[in-house]
Amino acid sequence: MGRKIQFTDVTLRDAHQSLFATRMRTKDMVDIAPVIDKAGFWSVECWGGATFDVCLRFLKEDPWERLRTLRKLMPNSRLQMLLRGQNLVGYRHYPDDVVKAFVRKAAENGIDVFRVFDALNDLRNVEVAVETAKEMGKIVEGALSYTISPVHTEDLYIELALEFKEMGADIIAIKDMAGLLSPERAYSLVKAIKEEVGLPVHIHTHCTSGLAEMAQLKAAEAGADIFDVAISPMASDTSHPAVETMLYAFAEFGFEANLDRKALRKMAQHFKEVRKKYKKFDIDFKGVDAAVLEHQIPGGMISNLINQLKEQGALDKLEEVLEEVPRVREDLGYPPLVTPTSQIVGTQAVLNVLAGERYKMITQETKNYVKGLYGRPPAPIKEEIIKKVLGDEEPITCRPADLLEPELDKRREEIKDLARSEEDVLSYCLFPKVAREFFEWREKVEKGEIPPLTDEEFFGVEEEEKRCPQPL
Amino acid sequence: MGRKIQFTDVTLRDAHQSLFATRMRTKDMVDIAPVIDKAGFWSVECWGGATFDVCLRFLKEDPWERLRTLRKLMPNSRLQMLLRGQNLVGYRHYPDDVVKAFVRKAAENGIDVFRVFDALNDLRNVEVAVETAKEMGKIVEGALSYTISPVHTEDLYIELALEFKEMGADIIAIKDMAGLLSPERAYSLVKAIKEEVGLPVHIHTHCTSGLAEMAQLKAAEAGADIFDVAISPMASDTSHPAVETMLYAFAEFGFEANLDRKALRKMAQHFKEVRKKYKKFDIDFKGVDAAVLEHQIPGGMISNLINQLKEQGALDKLEEVLEEVPRVREDLGYPPLVTPTSQIVGTQAVLNVLAGERYKMITQETKNYVKGLYGRPPAPIKEEIIKKVLGDEEPITCRPADLLEPELDKRREEIKDLARSEEDVLSYCLFPKVAREFFEWREKVEKGEIPPLTDEEFFGVEEEEKRCPQPL
Ligand SMILES: [Co+2]
Ligand SMILES: [Co+2]
Repeated sequence: MGRKIQFTDVTLRDAHQSLFATRMRTKDMVDIAPVIDKAGFWSVECWGGATFDVCLRFLKEDPWERLRTLRKLMPNSRLQMLLRGQNLVGYRHYPDDVVKAFVRKAAENGIDVFRVFDALNDLRNVEVAVETAKEMGKIVEGALSYTISPVHTEDLYIELALEFKEMGADIIAIKDMAGLLSPERAYSLVKAIKEEVGLPVHIHTHCTSGLAEMAQLKAAEAGADIFDVAISPMASDTSHPAVETMLYAFAEFGFEANLDRKALRKMAQHFKEVRKKYKKFDIDFKGVDAAVLEHQIPGGMISNLINQLKEQGALDKLEEVLEEVPRVREDLGYPPLVTPTSQIVGTQAVLNVLAGERYKMITQETKNYVKGLYGRPPAPIKEEIIKKVLGDEEPITCRPADLLEPELDKRREEIKDLARSEEDVLSYCLFPKVAREFFEWREKVEKGEIPPLTDEEFFGVEEEEKRCPQPL
Repeated sequence: MGRKIQFTDVTLRDAHQSLFATRMRTKDMVDIAPVIDKAGFWSVECWGGATFDVCLRFLKEDPWERLRTLRKLMPNSRLQMLLRGQNLVGYRHYPDDVVKAFVRKAAENGIDVFRVFDALNDLRNVEVAVETAKEMGKIVEGALSYTISPVHTEDLYIELALEFKEMGADIIAIKDMAGLLSPERAYSLVKAIKEEVGLPVHIHTHCTSGLAEMAQLKAAEAGADIFDVAISPMASDTSHPAVETMLYAFAEFGFEANLDRKALRKMAQHFKEVRKKYKKFDIDFKGVDAAVLEHQIPGGMISNLINQLKEQGALDKLEEVLEEVPRVREDLGYPPLVTPTSQIVGTQAVLNVLAGERYKMITQETKNYVKGLYGRPPAPIKEEIIKKVLGDEEPITCRPADLLEPELDKRREEIKDLARSEEDVLSYCLFPKVAREFFEWREKVEKGEIPPLTDEEFFGVEEEEKRCPQPL
């Protein structure tokens, strides 16, 4: 066939986010970044998602500094980030002034490709981010949160993709965070988008349920253009297909990608050692998670449900809760089960079972959701649920961020000299407590009042040492 | 499409052989066997391969007893075994009287499907086994050892498959032990076999390099009939595609299999716990092994090379050795790299590098191989290598087992009353030292002179206890 395809390497962002709690430090990226830069990827995803928060909170690193470092080390590569629409890289909606400033600074510091999505696929929540990135002259990927439900038809996704296109998106990404995208669905969805939207299609899948490689292969047959992969020691399980595997499989079908095999070998050697280093944080995942194919409940969400039930001494109710989850999801208009909706639906399902009566107890998050503060659900929420949850209150119909006051100036005043740059102010807007602690820690280290974070502190004491105290 | 396909569950044989050193004990099979029996698999692979040896050697179990137990617990299922042709379930060629008696007893004790292969695809080494199984009225799968080389063309495989058919094989299995079968190759090879041989095709792949699910999918599209899978917690990595994953992916394309989902759920629950139990033996495998796609050297073989070089303090020669392996393989007529040829080729490559001159040092195994004692290589061995290795000696041209004296009667006399059955005599023929030790151990346990093997002994003392000796 001889069709040209492209790969995006996600090793520096989603792979370690999926495999070892986003803990990879910049120092384990710098040696290999020049090699990745030469490997020939269409783009290198290396920022955004959970990395921003984890940098500040656990790594004691400035995420902006990381971005500038990688920018310098990878002059030939498109650097890509994952942006959660109005949530940016945080967990709540931020006002438009923060969103605009954040996207501008991300672009100025080195991001070339913004992959933007909303958990509910409410595209009002991505508008400002998309527009700002386009104003900055950057590439925008409009990402569809993929899920399975009676309302998530091919037509719906086409509609969303067309809306993204109108907004200025250059590429449509299919974002399958739970590993639900089957090869047959991948084929037909990609075909439909290519035909009816006419933009390049970028495939993002996780290997959790064992479908990912097959989905990518069928997506390629249907005309998909770019594929998210990770280097082999950081691939598979809850991560992504291995670049070497897909390159090999694709090449024989005539899908050609110009990747430098020597660079890939060097990357594999490097990240094999890196992964060993982060063993303490490595996910305990064996085999394949097939449960997600049964109930469409992602593995991580089931773990959370089990923990919640354990705390209540009600683990015997697990089966009931697993049956309640799809009902709550239906009541709430079939949200994709991803942060934050997976928590909202899961906790409400637990309460519905434990209280012995559905919606007798309601969380604040459920209330906010029903009120419309997260955005518009894929299908209307059931009338009776709205009444039960809101009583006389009316749901909002506007874009949630329309209700938010500008924050940037206020935050700038609050944080004062602890922030040394506009980037710092933005870190503070997103994570006030965590950022302030980081700034204070930074000052103390620079003044020599406390030592910098050592490897021992970060990785913890070796197990043996901990287990066998020497007799006094 | 609506085409009917079938699955073979290999959880009880190849999955634990690939994931935790074949250590699963019969007691972890008995509770779930009736559930597997009802799940609707075309067959259940549960015997042969390394399980026979490991039962006697490490589990202190009689492998024949296991077979009879499973036979009783799975009355509705075809029980399948893996048979290494003239090697049976051992590591050398056995004389024909032993092969015939072994296959008869396996059939009598419960095997319905014999998958027979030879490491070199020298089908003279499978003849006696295939004929005997057919005489016993059993189903025979002729298994092609899949590898990649200039002589391993589609035509060669077709020829082998036709030879198997003539011998009486009912099904052709493609046995990809190293995870080398790409989706494109799978498609075209299956298509060719279906068209030119006309027997059902059974696909056996390993997930090691990340290709397996894609290979199965394209094999299905090409018309393959039966697929080897493992239950999800025992799937992926060096094991096989998960049954739940393939069932889900296939169903949407109209490839239908009547499997009982409730039974699969129960199996998944059971084997999730079983896998945890055998943690001590679990393979340390993270991500994807892409090296095999680069040099066609299986991961296990590279580990062996590294160990050999470490012992010689010559780990710095690894790259040279990895380059020498394909040359030695070419010299020796492109044997598939599987036991025992992977060891022969690997060790000879190490010697060629360390001696500073190729074939200056030669192992006894290389000599035996060149002499023809393992069978006929896929391509002729190079003339100059034959001369260098054998000197004035001539290679044999007959079937290797033609040179072997009958053994059964001799062994029966040797082992006397320690063997309580003809099955015991066969165990002794295959593994004289290990079987004798097992028989002696069994007698002592029955007489109460020593205690039976406890879980503590089998799994070893807990790490903590071992590591922290109490102060005296
Ligand atoms: Co992801
Ligand atoms: Co196998």
